Amino acid sequence: MAYRVSETDAARIARYRPASGMETPRFSGLPSFMRLPVLDPTAAAGAIEIGLVGIPFDGATTNRPGARLGPRFVREASTGTRMVNHATGIAPYDLAACADLGDVPVNPVDVAETCRRIEAFHGALRAGGIVPLSVGGDHLVTYPVLKALGRDRPLGLVHVDAHSDTDDSQYDGSRLTHGTPFRRAVEDGVLDPRRCVQIGIRGSMDAADERDWACSQGIRIVTMEEAAARGLPEVVAEARAIVGAGPAYLSFDVDALDPAYAPGTGTPEIGGFTTREALYLLRALRGLDLVGADLVEVAPPLDPSGLTALTGGQILFEILCLLADAVAARRP
Amino acid sequence: MAYRVSETDAARIARYRPASGMETPRFSGLPSFMRLPVLDPTAAAGAIEIGLVGIPFDGATTNRPGARLGPRFVREASTGTRMVNHATGIAPYDLAACADLGDVPVNPVDVAETCRRIEAFHGALRAGGIVPLSVGGDHLVTYPVLKALGRDRPLGLVHVDAHSDTDDSQYDGSRLTHGTPFRRAVEDGVLDPRRCVQIGIRGSMDAADERDWACSQGIRIVTMEEAAARGLPEVVAEARAIVGAGPAYLSFDVDALDPAYAPGTGTPEIGGFTTREALYLLRALRGLDLVGADLVEVAPPLDPSGLTALTGGQILFEILCLLADAVAARRP
Amino acid sequence: MAYRVSETDAARIARYRPASGMETPRFSGLPSFMRLPVLDPTAAAGAIEIGLVGIPFDGATTNRPGARLGPRFVREASTGTRMVNHATGIAPYDLAACADLGDVPVNPVDVAETCRRIEAFHGALRAGGIVPLSVGGDHLVTYPVLKALGRDRPLGLVHVDAHSDTDDSQYDGSRLTHGTPFRRAVEDGVLDPRRCVQIGIRGSMDAADERDWACSQGIRIVTMEEAAARGLPEVVAEARAIVGAGPAYLSFDVDALDPAYAPGTGTPEIGGFTTREALYLLRALRGLDLVGADLVEVAPPLDPSGLTALTGGQILFEILCLLADAVAARRP
Amino acid sequence: MAYRVSETDAARIARYRPASGMETPRFSGLPSFMRLPVLDPTAAAGAIEIGLVGIPFDGATTNRPGARLGPRFVREASTGTRMVNHATGIAPYDLAACADLGDVPVNPVDVAETCRRIEAFHGALRAGGIVPLSVGGDHLVTYPVLKALGRDRPLGLVHVDAHSDTDDSQYDGSRLTHGTPFRRAVEDGVLDPRRCVQIGIRGSMDAADERDWACSQGIRIVTMEEAAARGLPEVVAEARAIVGAGPAYLSFDVDALDPAYAPGTGTPEIGGFTTREALYLLRALRGLDLVGADLVEVAPPLDPSGLTALTGGQILFEILCLLADAVAARRP
Amino acid sequence: MAYRVSETDAARIARYRPASGMETPRFSGLPSFMRLPVLDPTAAAGAIEIGLVGIPFDGATTNRPGARLGPRFVREASTGTRMVNHATGIAPYDLAACADLGDVPVNPVDVAETCRRIEAFHGALRAGGIVPLSVGGDHLVTYPVLKALGRDRPLGLVHVDAHSDTDDSQYDGSRLTHGTPFRRAVEDGVLDPRRCVQIGIRGSMDAADERDWACSQGIRIVTMEEAAARGLPEVVAEARAIVGAGPAYLSFDVDALDPAYAPGTGTPEIGGFTTREALYLLRALRGLDLVGADLVEVAPPLDPSGLTALTGGQILFEILCLLADAVAARRP
Amino acid sequence: MAYRVSETDAARIARYRPASGMETPRFSGLPSFMRLPVLDPTAAAGAIEIGLVGIPFDGATTNRPGARLGPRFVREASTGTRMVNHATGIAPYDLAACADLGDVPVNPVDVAETCRRIEAFHGALRAGGIVPLSVGGDHLVTYPVLKALGRDRPLGLVHVDAHSDTDDSQYDGSRLTHGTPFRRAVEDGVLDPRRCVQIGIRGSMDAADERDWACSQGIRIVTMEEAAARGLPEVVAEARAIVGAGPAYLSFDVDALDPAYAPGTGTPEIGGFTTREALYLLRALRGLDLVGADLVEVAPPLDPSGLTALTGGQILFEILCLLADAVAARRP
Repeated sequence: MAYRVSETDAARIARYRPASGMETPRFSGLPSFMRLPVLDPTAAAGAIEIGLVGIPFDGATTNRPGARLGPRFVREASTGTRMVNHATGIAPYDLAACADLGDVPVNPVDVAETCRRIEAFHGALRAGGIVPLSVGGDHLVTYPVLKALGRDRPLGLVHVDAHSDTDDSQYDGSRLTHGTPFRRAVEDGVLDPRRCVQIGIRGSMDAADERDWACSQGIRIVTMEEAAARGLPEVVAEARAIVGAGPAYLSFDVDALDPAYAPGTGTPEIGGFTTREALYLLRALRGLDLVGADLVEVAPPLDPSGLTALTGGQILFEILCLLADAVAARRP
Repeated sequence: MAYRVSETDAARIARYRPASGMETPRFSGLPSFMRLPVLDPTAAAGAIEIGLVGIPFDGATTNRPGARLGPRFVREASTGTRMVNHATGIAPYDLAACADLGDVPVNPVDVAETCRRIEAFHGALRAGGIVPLSVGGDHLVTYPVLKALGRDRPLGLVHVDAHSDTDDSQYDGSRLTHGTPFRRAVEDGVLDPRRCVQIGIRGSMDAADERDWACSQGIRIVTMEEAAARGLPEVVAEARAIVGAGPAYLSFDVDALDPAYAPGTGTPEIGGFTTREALYLLRALRGLDLVGADLVEVAPPLDPSGLTALTGGQILFEILCLLADAVAARRP
Repeated sequence: MAYRVSETDAARIARYRPASGMETPRFSGLPSFMRLPVLDPTAAAGAIEIGLVGIPFDGATTNRPGARLGPRFVREASTGTRMVNHATGIAPYDLAACADLGDVPVNPVDVAETCRRIEAFHGALRAGGIVPLSVGGDHLVTYPVLKALGRDRPLGLVHVDAHSDTDDSQYDGSRLTHGTPFRRAVEDGVLDPRRCVQIGIRGSMDAADERDWACSQGIRIVTMEEAAARGLPEVVAEARAIVGAGPAYLSFDVDALDPAYAPGTGTPEIGGFTTREALYLLRALRGLDLVGADLVEVAPPLDPSGLTALTGGQILFEILCLLADAVAARRP
Repeated sequence: MAYRVSETDAARIARYRPASGMETPRFSGLPSFMRLPVLDPTAAAGAIEIGLVGIPFDGATTNRPGARLGPRFVREASTGTRMVNHATGIAPYDLAACADLGDVPVNPVDVAETCRRIEAFHGALRAGGIVPLSVGGDHLVTYPVLKALGRDRPLGLVHVDAHSDTDDSQYDGSRLTHGTPFRRAVEDGVLDPRRCVQIGIRGSMDAADERDWACSQGIRIVTMEEAAARGLPEVVAEARAIVGAGPAYLSFDVDALDPAYAPGTGTPEIGGFTTREALYLLRALRGLDLVGADLVEVAPPLDPSGLTALTGGQILFEILCLLADAVAARRP
Repeated sequence: MAYRVSETDAARIARYRPASGMETPRFSGLPSFMRLPVLDPTAAAGAIEIGLVGIPFDGATTNRPGARLGPRFVREASTGTRMVNHATGIAPYDLAACADLGDVPVNPVDVAETCRRIEAFHGALRAGGIVPLSVGGDHLVTYPVLKALGRDRPLGLVHVDAHSDTDDSQYDGSRLTHGTPFRRAVEDGVLDPRRCVQIGIRGSMDAADERDWACSQGIRIVTMEEAAARGLPEVVAEARAIVGAGPAYLSFDVDALDPAYAPGTGTPEIGGFTTREALYLLRALRGLDLVGADLVEVAPPLDPSGLTALTGGQILFEILCLLADAVAARRP
Repeated sequence: MAYRVSETDAARIARYRPASGMETPRFSGLPSFMRLPVLDPTAAAGAIEIGLVGIPFDGATTNRPGARLGPRFVREASTGTRMVNHATGIAPYDLAACADLGDVPVNPVDVAETCRRIEAFHGALRAGGIVPLSVGGDHLVTYPVLKALGRDRPLGLVHVDAHSDTDDSQYDGSRLTHGTPFRRAVEDGVLDPRRCVQIGIRGSMDAADERDWACSQGIRIVTMEEAAARGLPEVVAEARAIVGAGPAYLSFDVDALDPAYAPGTGTPEIGGFTTREALYLLRALRGLDLVGADLVEVAPPLDPSGLTALTGGQILFEILCLLADAVAARRP
């Protein structure tokens, strides 16, 4: 596939590239995402096409906390990624101008206010034509991102996770938790449930019918067991058909992976994806019209070996390849 | 499948249920197994049908110790499990009255005395009609449990493990170690070796013939390599045929799992089961006439990330589903 | 000193005692605080005199989270404590009937609602004549406890901490954080600032005048440096004089200790107390008219060796000795 | 297969055997490799046939260090291996006299000098007819070993790794790093590139063409993705065909394994081999004319659970089985 | 002070010296104690004067296990010690011939049998004129060592510990636990209680009178609080006076140290010695007629940072200096 | 003391300030040193007065590695420091314009080349009038820094460390190791040995005379034991007298601290400083004419709890206060 790149784009792309590990060691320098240049978000419009953003918030976590430290440690681990995807050949920094835009200014003790700030931050990026690749934080952060990106037209969704996150409320009425983002987003009309697919769902349930709401809305749930039984090629094909050609969002909860691969997360469920499967799955999504993506629920304090942040950083690179490819494909 | 439940049973079942994570956080409250009510074992007869029991003993361990702390940390991790098995649909707390019966009062410096206490404790449960689900402790604890449960009629056995645990003795004559329980149980006539199957056996051997005794007794050993080559569906079918319709016991040594999934155990062997395989294997055993089960060799001090206890807690839920199903199936 | 104990009290005291480690191992059984009996709080009035309570909430934490897991891990570690204080001779379980009352039913995503629940829970204890010994959780939890206990008469306070926790607000207006409890309590009139002393305060400051408010109210701040220079005997004497003979509360933030002794806390500051100093300090407070106490900010995920929970459990025993002594001293 | 063993060989073999875990616990005694006798390398010629050697050097590491501690911790973990390979039946200590020869006397601050010492050490072993099984250390150590073993005739190579390690130079001209050993060895004529196969290669690349040099020399690169797609039986068959009947070397970089199985390594790449696959792969190489082998890049400080050293020790046993089989097969 | 060394002694001393860290890195080679030569205990008589011995047994532990791994990890850590005590000037390897004699062949599942083996092993050393410096293991191992060394004449004792370890029995009659060694030794007449001093005792007690037995026998208990209040110079002077000029033993339980300095031990008690104090204390014991010594209760699995083994290794060097000085002083 | 600040200085100072933790959480954003602005070193001259610099190099380490990761993790931990030193009142960001200048571009496999780059980098800072505060890295990095700063006039030195680091060479001739920097610097004439004091020296020695060279040059060595015996006030007074009024450098090796306070370092020695003592010592150095300073030997992989990086970050703040005070004092 040949990408078209205008002169302006080419200049921007040349300006925003990671520091090379062949020249300075990967463990040196400040750990921006992928060793990319750091840019003030207010200066990003017109300068870059993809913005990597941290959302260090875990105030909506109902189980073990720690995901507020996700952006910091995923940044650190992401400095080990390099320039070219060896499997797909995608060289993201040749396709799109990328930068680290820092973190959303969250309020760790105020869920609702933080949601407003996340929505505002991502709304500004969208207004500036920048595709966000956001790193949580707990999964509630996806909800305000979707509100910012899906405001005008409901989005499709590929959601890789152990949990459906379509609860209604918990603890006698709390409706903004990391178990509810996709229900809220459907209710708000920013997600089109018939273009949504959830992959990897598993684990014991609080009630046998807890996934009924999602299904009743038309969301397709592919359990881990179904994915294993049918094989990923079939699952991906169905997912691509569901999401279709319209604008779509990709949300990757690190607990989709088996806890052997990602122990550092608040609510791990055994029997999940290997990273090899996750790489296959993500690479097979190439070609979707992605307008944003996120990686959430990396909780470094729960992971003494740092494996989860390492995995998160490398998964982030794979998602960035998908976004860069989509950006390039959307060029006139 | 429709279960028959008498009014008495229904009342008991309604009384003994875990605290819900939708009402209070899973990390709150005392960590009983599955957040179940705690019941004095002397009051259990007539009140419950399945008793979860800790056996905090690792005095028969010949390698790295720590399994005495297994019950405490598996209890903690098990508080993350919920009400319904999402894959099989089994809702164990709707099928049988369950409670946490605390720990057997072990003597950490006296192997023989502790065996007597374990046997007495489980003998009393059996006399009260209670099915035990026990958490070790090292694997020797299974021997006195089998003596209590198989006294009148030798049991069948599904034994998932990296090791056959059918040694004769070690260190010039010690016959009660965590490498000998199944040999002792066969010798005592409480296990029927022709109804025994061991799955997942692997690792280097002290002598080429160390598994010969087991085979000579009629125990079927399915090595990890055989299981991988033939596939679990075939293995499970054979296992079910071997165990047959008679009363059977399930013993799950956490080192059956690959150490990537369960590093916190005294004698790990690489090349083991994934948790996905273990879940498949356990769920496929549904329908056996299980009269008891255990999970052993979780050694928390050897596992800084807590992954093994987490896995243990979720495996324990799967086993509980099997036991509850068996209890319900045995109702008149 | 001879304590007077009525027959009723003696009977209660005999009923509520920890399980002995000479009979069953300390690592066995469910980990209630100090291996004490567990009692439903609604049944506590009249039955016991001191209630140990968990408050698993860290939703007001502005730095690293994890203290919501404090009660669980402090309970676990506290099972290693025994019957008699070897230095003071206090045998708390001979002086007062104690029990573990479980956890306050917190809502991890709602700060204000959780404060209401903590206040209600402790208000009920107070109404039942039960002295609470509470384990956080982050330091905000002390605020609603003080509201419950100081409603009728403002309390004195011994506050051992690295931080004054008298901020006004953070993040553009949030007034309920773990940096504000004592300011809120003074504003509400439940603390008498002239009977308050803060010991161990240290660490860099956001502004040079950040401790001015506290001082302006009459709170006495003893910095770590002052405590080290003058010596603890002098500091304690002054503290006792400040608090006086009226009802008082003791709040111990584990970050008062040096991080070498308590690394598992959200906002550690180097140069703090050793545990030897902390033991001296606490024992020297004997005789204050304590009506409640707490231990807060133990954050187990930040402490791979478990040292902080261990320390927390043993500090808790020391505080319990003080409370039991005060309860006994108040008997007619 | 029947091995021929002369009387002399039989005597040597009987003299050099590991301490048995059935007689003394595996955690006792000094941790030599496999609990084998320790022999001064100058006394090894004529006494033994396979020498286990540590090379505690990581001074050529361009990423996270720690592999200098590999020999010490792999020795410790290897004490858990036993006498017989349960899958292949190979009993290595019945086939060849083996000993632990201690460590090469490296200079941790001098890359070039250390290379000279490694080459001299292994040259002496070769002169004495001893097959080396070496434990790194970072991967550069393989280069001087190959220089010692391939001096007279270029060797074939099975190289299991996530990285090709055929870089030219880094940091403006450094040519001796752990990313360059196989390029240097081919340039020096001690490896025959047309008899070299690299298996498991993956991870993002610094440049799209970074593997071109290897391919241009005739080295066959089997990426992880290709290996997964084709299956290991096919891959191994091709590898055996490439290496052929001539003398060959086996180099196993522990980062060939997925980081879930081997987190303790300097440059982990997700999506790697499971240990079950690695065991299959290694066992299927039986019959190659191996004249030496190594295991490298185990970095214990990066692995709090010790899983990587454990895995390393068990992988080392598998490789030793291959070497012992090759030694026995070469007997006249 | 001038030591007299015969020609024979000088020759032995020259033969048994640690490998120098100025020539080969301290992390290289097999980790014998202090990098000393390893000698078969049966060949030690006449060859050396001080034998370092591992006793990898924790089967008498009533709390958290792991001390069986003490010898292995203390050996590893001790390789960081060098030739000369910088504070006292003692150069132990110039004063006495020292070697690592390996481990006592314990039976991990048999307490009584292991005691017999420890006694026999140390009896043989004593018969050969070798002073043992033993590394546990749990504290029970001191009992059979004392039986071997004090058989003919009861010994004096300096016992540094948090616990008196003079319990009678536990769990309804078990008399051989790590809480009983010194009571058993006094009962057996191998310790002279009036020449015994215990320093650092602290922590809550199971009964107020639990230290009464020790005191009634004439053992002097210096609690941690007393030691802190009086200062170590006074404490040491008293200890020296108590032990006197006769043959004496030194037993150092690592839990004498504060858990901030030694978290990796089964029964830590806060408020203990700093290492600076321990160094002072040990160095001040120079001149006692020590006939043996031990270091016990290092439990590596409970210490993720390895701090306790590090400390153990350096404390061991200090004790070795005392023993070497005593050996030299006893030369005719 | 009143500082004089010109308008230009005031403007610069206002421009370079850390992000406030009262507005955005300390765990958010990229972890620059102290949350300071990041500045390209080539743009620093004229813009700032103090430059914080990372030197991620541990290629001269002769013991356990890991200090190359020091800058990254100290940066992370330093984000917890605030604006004002509560003990001294120094508000460093009000006194001098400070920025994070990133890392020296080291070559991890080339000791000599890296020394050249460090010297060049710091030479440029000095030429630009910028005072460097550097974070290692192993202690060798201090040598090229001293060459850059002491070129014209030999400097005085306060060196806080467990080791003298005045070895001549190791491993048969290597003269650039982390054990040699101060010998090399004296030989090169960039340090004035009679104005040098080393504080905290301790630990066993390779030879009794290893500190003789330092003393023979006139360097004053204050051992830990002497410091403890005399007390820090006296030690500091002497140190100030030795260094005098001339330009001086401060080098703080984190292993000066006791390993309980700083376990994450390559060569820990027990019996070291507490952080409280270190804070006292540093604060008492106020008024020296410091022209640069460093903090070295933080090795994060050796410290699972992160305590050493935390301590390093807070120590760094103290040193920064000293430098800022010196910068302000030098203003005309």
